[in-house]
Amino acid sequence: MSESAVSVYEAIRRRRDVRAEFSGEVIPDDVLMRILDAAHRAPSVGNTQPWDFVVVRKPETLGTFAAHVADARVNFAKSLPEDRRETFDPIKIEGITESGTGIVVTYDPSRGGPNILGRHTVDDTGLFSAVLAIQNLWLAAVAEDIGIGWVSFYDEAYLTELMNIPAPVRPIAWLCIGKVTEFQQVPDLERFGWKQRRPLADAVHFETY
Amino acid sequence: MSESAVSVYEAIRRRRDVRAEFSGEVIPDDVLMRILDAAHRAPSVGNTQPWDFVVVRKPETLGTFAAHVADARVNFAKSLPEDRRETFDPIKIEGITESGTGIVVTYDPSRGGPNILGRHTVDDTGLFSAVLAIQNLWLAAVAEDIGIGWVSFYDEAYLTELMNIPAPVRPIAWLCIGKVTEFQQVPDLERFGWKQRRPLADAVHFETY
Repeated sequence: MSESAVSVYEAIRRRRDVRAEFSGEVIPDDVLMRILDAAHRAPSVGNTQPWDFVVVRKPETLGTFAAHVADARVNFAKSLPEDRRETFDPIKIEGITESGTGIVVTYDPSRGGPNILGRHTVDDTGLFSAVLAIQNLWLAAVAEDIGIGWVSFYDEAYLTELMNIPAPVRPIAWLCIGKVTEFQQVPDLERFGWKQRRPLADAVHFETY
Repeated sequence: MSESAVSVYEAIRRRRDVRAEFSGEVIPDDVLMRILDAAHRAPSVGNTQPWDFVVVRKPETLGTFAAHVADARVNFAKSLPEDRRETFDPIKIEGITESGTGIVVTYDPSRGGPNILGRHTVDDTGLFSAVLAIQNLWLAAVAEDIGIGWVSFYDEAYLTELMNIPAPVRPIAWLCIGKVTEFQQVPDLERFGWKQRRPLADAVHFETY
């Protein structure tokens, strides 16, 4: 199958954080590698490319991580005031087993040695580089009609151990990736009344904040 | 002018971190707003959209910031071993005045209140959301034949004050944005022998890190 011609703007508009719409059909390897190649072409501070991608497909691992996330969900629900707990209740927060594939994105702050061009003033730019790779990955996936769902209901130390990640490398995201039945038109958190979007005009300032 | 049809994959391949290729022609307002709209459609933890964009065009402000960055450059050069200093010397690190427009991207950790869906376990996901917006912005710009150069040679407290940014909001990037004469085929840091790229195969792992 050849590369998708979906435009940047179209992919940005269609992109959703997918939870309930994974079809269960596992993403083919050639498409997966094309999407990872797109991620790997992201910009990075000092050209360090400090990211790695762990592709997870073993059902036992997916099930183990899903159980951990279910616990984190319970803890969050308990922390909410009652009205917010009721709004949260029907919202699905992950599609770990349904998507069939997880991608754990990691950040290695030691890559590139001690003198990193551009990181001496703003150290976070290393971490930011790995996040830029995630958005490349996400848009390439949408262009291929593949859904991504970013899961953040987990304890970082737990995921570090589960993935056998050596210090000082950090896991920064678990991404569910898989074929979808559809992309929702409206983000889940808006559809379920959790949080409405903000107008662009509120976000743009001129000359100073 | 209508929206660009450049594909996601094409934009990801063409994208460069632009320093020397700004043509001096300032980006038109309609294109700028289309690019900012693309940024604003990024995913965000708990749908918080914690980013803001400060568009800077006043020549005095651009000049003041460029002078600050020049100082930071000197400090970095001084910190380098001699051979690396010689490699660094010809590398241009910013196009602040040449691009004619700066966009300061900020992150507001307080947006969305105390109970943010998805940030209770991994607090950094707030910050990550603002970075995802930057990559949307970057790819939309490339699709419009507009260059972006991310400047990180600055002191965060200095930029906070220059932009009049109130606590707890943080500036996370200064992006130079403007028309370009060309996009380089090979990243600057590779062309100048600073750092070569890593093969994709090294970055992809299966089941565990």
